[in-house]
Amino acid sequence: MQIGIIGLGKMGGNMAERLRRAGHDVVGYDRHPEVSDVADLDELVQRLQAPRAVWVMVPAGDATRATVDKLCEALSPGDIVVDGGNSHYLDDKKHADQLGERGIGFVDAGVSGGVWGLQNGYALMVGGDAENVGRLMPIFDSLKPEGEDGFVHAGTVGAGHFAKMVHNGIEYGMMQAFAEGWELLEATDIVTDVPGTFASWRTGTVIRSWLLDLLVRALDQDPDLAELKGYAEDSGEGRWTVQAAVDHAVPLPAITAALFARFSSRQDDSPAMKMVAALRNQFGGHAVTSVEGQHAKGADAPGADVTPPFQGGH
Amino acid sequence: MQIGIIGLGKMGGNMAERLRRAGHDVVGYDRHPEVSDVADLDELVQRLQAPRAVWVMVPAGDATRATVDKLCEALSPGDIVVDGGNSHYLDDKKHADQLGERGIGFVDAGVSGGVWGLQNGYALMVGGDAENVGRLMPIFDSLKPEGEDGFVHAGTVGAGHFAKMVHNGIEYGMMQAFAEGWELLEATDIVTDVPGTFASWRTGTVIRSWLLDLLVRALDQDPDLAELKGYAEDSGEGRWTVQAAVDHAVPLPAITAALFARFSSRQDDSPAMKMVAALRNQFGGHAVTSVEGQHAKGADAPGADVTPPFQGGH
Amino acid sequence: MQIGIIGLGKMGGNMAERLRRAGHDVVGYDRHPEVSDVADLDELVQRLQAPRAVWVMVPAGDATRATVDKLCEALSPGDIVVDGGNSHYLDDKKHADQLGERGIGFVDAGVSGGVWGLQNGYALMVGGDAENVGRLMPIFDSLKPEGEDGFVHAGTVGAGHFAKMVHNGIEYGMMQAFAEGWELLEATDIVTDVPGTFASWRTGTVIRSWLLDLLVRALDQDPDLAELKGYAEDSGEGRWTVQAAVDHAVPLPAITAALFARFSSRQDDSPAMKMVAALRNQFGGHAVTSVEGQHAKGADAPGADVTPPFQGGH
Amino acid sequence: MQIGIIGLGKMGGNMAERLRRAGHDVVGYDRHPEVSDVADLDELVQRLQAPRAVWVMVPAGDATRATVDKLCEALSPGDIVVDGGNSHYLDDKKHADQLGERGIGFVDAGVSGGVWGLQNGYALMVGGDAENVGRLMPIFDSLKPEGEDGFVHAGTVGAGHFAKMVHNGIEYGMMQAFAEGWELLEATDIVTDVPGTFASWRTGTVIRSWLLDLLVRALDQDPDLAELKGYAEDSGEGRWTVQAAVDHAVPLPAITAALFARFSSRQDDSPAMKMVAALRNQFGGHAVTSVEGQHAKGADAPGADVTPPFQGGH
Repeated sequence: MQIGIIGLGKMGGNMAERLRRAGHDVVGYDRHPEVSDVADLDELVQRLQAPRAVWVMVPAGDATRATVDKLCEALSPGDIVVDGGNSHYLDDKKHADQLGERGIGFVDAGVSGGVWGLQNGYALMVGGDAENVGRLMPIFDSLKPEGEDGFVHAGTVGAGHFAKMVHNGIEYGMMQAFAEGWELLEATDIVTDVPGTFASWRTGTVIRSWLLDLLVRALDQDPDLAELKGYAEDSGEGRWTVQAAVDHAVPLPAITAALFARFSSRQDDSPAMKMVAALRNQFGGHAVTSVEGQHAKGADAPGADVTPPFQGGH
Repeated sequence: MQIGIIGLGKMGGNMAERLRRAGHDVVGYDRHPEVSDVADLDELVQRLQAPRAVWVMVPAGDATRATVDKLCEALSPGDIVVDGGNSHYLDDKKHADQLGERGIGFVDAGVSGGVWGLQNGYALMVGGDAENVGRLMPIFDSLKPEGEDGFVHAGTVGAGHFAKMVHNGIEYGMMQAFAEGWELLEATDIVTDVPGTFASWRTGTVIRSWLLDLLVRALDQDPDLAELKGYAEDSGEGRWTVQAAVDHAVPLPAITAALFARFSSRQDDSPAMKMVAALRNQFGGHAVTSVEGQHAKGADAPGADVTPPFQGGH
Repeated sequence: MQIGIIGLGKMGGNMAERLRRAGHDVVGYDRHPEVSDVADLDELVQRLQAPRAVWVMVPAGDATRATVDKLCEALSPGDIVVDGGNSHYLDDKKHADQLGERGIGFVDAGVSGGVWGLQNGYALMVGGDAENVGRLMPIFDSLKPEGEDGFVHAGTVGAGHFAKMVHNGIEYGMMQAFAEGWELLEATDIVTDVPGTFASWRTGTVIRSWLLDLLVRALDQDPDLAELKGYAEDSGEGRWTVQAAVDHAVPLPAITAALFARFSSRQDDSPAMKMVAALRNQFGGHAVTSVEGQHAKGADAPGADVTPPFQGGH
Repeated sequence: MQIGIIGLGKMGGNMAERLRRAGHDVVGYDRHPEVSDVADLDELVQRLQAPRAVWVMVPAGDATRATVDKLCEALSPGDIVVDGGNSHYLDDKKHADQLGERGIGFVDAGVSGGVWGLQNGYALMVGGDAENVGRLMPIFDSLKPEGEDGFVHAGTVGAGHFAKMVHNGIEYGMMQAFAEGWELLEATDIVTDVPGTFASWRTGTVIRSWLLDLLVRALDQDPDLAELKGYAEDSGEGRWTVQAAVDHAVPLPAITAALFARFSSRQDDSPAMKMVAALRNQFGGHAVTSVEGQHAKGADAPGADVTPPFQGGH
């Protein structure tokens, strides 16, 4: 079928290519003219035959919002917009309502696949009403990996991005579990063949997984990870997972631990631990030095104005 | 080769069977005579030709210690004992030293595989010196799954059980990550096809894994897990992982969160949360009722003896 | 000075009373006519002399928003509104902007004190510009406890509620720390005089605090907390603290642990732990029973379709 | 009464001084002759009249064990040994049994007080049988702070050190709660007077405490804690608290978070986060670069041997 794609970066460009290989008529627009099939968004709309389908694959947030605004004006009733970016699930409802007022359909699609997607297909989680999702099935069928899995119509508008968000939350937790296990093995020196141990786990164990395969590959390239800094960005979806959990009173200790570990990894020094050090100084051994140093000055010794109120309080 | 196996329960029995199918000469002893090949441990030793290899597959702790004590007396210099149970890695060193004084070798083997091991093989992590491990390789080769993975000589004595312990710690963290993601999906009602969403993730995503396959199977059998109580035992190895981390000053937040979640799952009511409730009662709305009820009694009103010391303290 | 107070519940009513005792001219409005000085909000405004000061003490969220909407119409340029409820700090900016367009000032005030506030005073954290805060100082001075502490002008609009929010987050963490310590003492039976131990800590230790005093009082009334359920609500501010931390990439593990413990305390059964139990069933001992039970049925045995893909994958 | 004290360091020396000021006959021994009253431990024993009381105040672990060994030989039936150091509670039982075989009594004493103890007294938590504790009450009464609190006979042998251990665990959690709150305030810049905010909380709030007083003092000396590194040692008792909790299946999330935060604070770089970074590289954007770089080399491109097994597996 015919589809327009807005945003021909790493993800959008490969998806367009995969769809073309599958025989679809793809018209791509990108703000970089050298990769764009059309001069602007208006020409994209003109090139598509109604009822149109337009897949938006631009950064979440402002860029997606601006694109939806423009499409809301340029498209016609009966057209459909798909947001395949990493939008927050609460934005989907807004976009669906905004487009819906003009009779334009909306589907949100969480897309997983990264650099292997072009060849192996993209895992898709989509949200929207059945009719809109149904019209887009030829596209979804070509994008998804072969086999029975890799695609789900997860629910109404927002469900696709919500599912993708939770997927990423689980991913955070799993990566953290592997990372902690590796650190413990490295720290203890009891297991002397750490890469071999991880490699052995790829068969017959409970933890065999694609992440384990990647971990083994990483240790194969750099057995001590000596080339790397212990620094990890977070993509936004980990934060949204924790915030959604807090909104809904769901305890999420392991995934949250993974998120906080990433936050900490980006700090040169921990402010909280400065405060812990400061408190230890106040009541502990370091303070002794200060006490002795300050005794000469007289009344300013630690404890002088601190302890008595509590001391006498009981 | 010839090997004695002590303990022919679910694990030991299947391992004996797998070794026999591979052509090994297995002599098994179990305290239940109906499954045992010999009357007692002495007969087991007599039936084996020196230098002997004896695989101990009994519960960790007292049972394993008692078995090692007996073997220390019954075996001869040059024999080897393998502890394939779930022993603590610090016990391995003690057993190796104890047996070593009599010239008997020792190898510890962490074994993974559960109910599929007989058919598919057991993942093995072994610790010991190279000569002892080398002599046992025919046994390890037959027990392990086909292919290049599934076996590692992880280090010297203790390394096998340590590796298995860390494997289980990682497993705790991964299971918790999946469990948290499922709870969030169930709690929010945004994704309406939760089993389908997990099923879709089996292809093309970062989190594809054997645990995900098991999770999909579990939801297939019981989509809401309505048949289950939220109650999870811990095997001991999760605790040891956390304790080893604490001993070595390694932060392990996600794995520890998984362990604590299991502890909590077995409490009818949380004592800690009783205390939180009690504290909230003391300073909050509930206390108001008490205050009013006690005002008639006069001086016993809350706050009377609590607040003034701090109030006046500053 | 003269002040209007909207909302004469437990907090607002006591604050009005404390201000009257201090000689201020308080006009109170409440939707319950029996406690209200005026018939409606319009009469409240009429009774106050310009430039007016109106303290809003109604539930955060819709009720506060609706009250601000009405005051925005009813008040005049030069008047000031104080939001003393538990509003989210991001709402403060909206209210300040909304009122500011009509020339009406806005100050947010985080108020702590609970049932002892009437007698001992209310700790106040306020946000707003210096002029508005300055005009209200006679009110703040009468509400706050005696002594030099108990009041802070924390920053511009929103800072008061933000400070109160962080205060409550710290409170969550401290309460959780005490509660965990108590649970450990109760669970181990090594310390046989638990209430006496906590009581002894009130003098000379690092953890002496008002919360410890409250804890001792609670154990004095009910030594095993046998009368209480391990169930704890959360006030909203704990959630906001965690969400603000996530927004700003600040790791907050202890406070978040406290929040999650409250979430868990309100669950009859843990959905996440159901999933952990389900996964354990799939690969563990329970599954054995099923395997044997189902072997008679043939191909449906667990593992049949699960294991091979991974088994053959390596 | 007469008492011997072994170990006249910062703690032991001040305790000896406090006891002398109270009129007790103190004979002190220290391996540094310049502060010791006697030449060696034998002379100490000779100088004391039977039945003797000897307070051991040396580092926990080897030093305490060695001292108990020597006292076991040098003392006589009817004498009492007090271990006032930071020993592990499980060591107490061993020491009590060892001394008990010779008819020598044993009491363990957890001691809190730090640099203010000499002047203000030491909070004491003691374990042992009633007779032994009773005999030492004159000493305890002089060491403890004035007032009714500051001393508890917590239970039998080990209970004193266990109580002190839990006290320190709670202390870890409380310090972490304050530290996290401070970091959040500093990170967000919404509250512009952070030291003033903490200072204000000293009166009328739920979190008023001695630690808050210390925190305010620390910020008074260094408002941004610019002089400090975010580095915090742990004393051992925090680790023991977590390990005791794990032993007894007690969830301790906030206190454990505090312990792990200290572990992390001492790492130059987080090994776990290196692994997270490595995994992100394997499946994410960075890997793209590698893929392109390696495509020229042919079959070695990432994904080639990683993806197919899982891809084809379903």
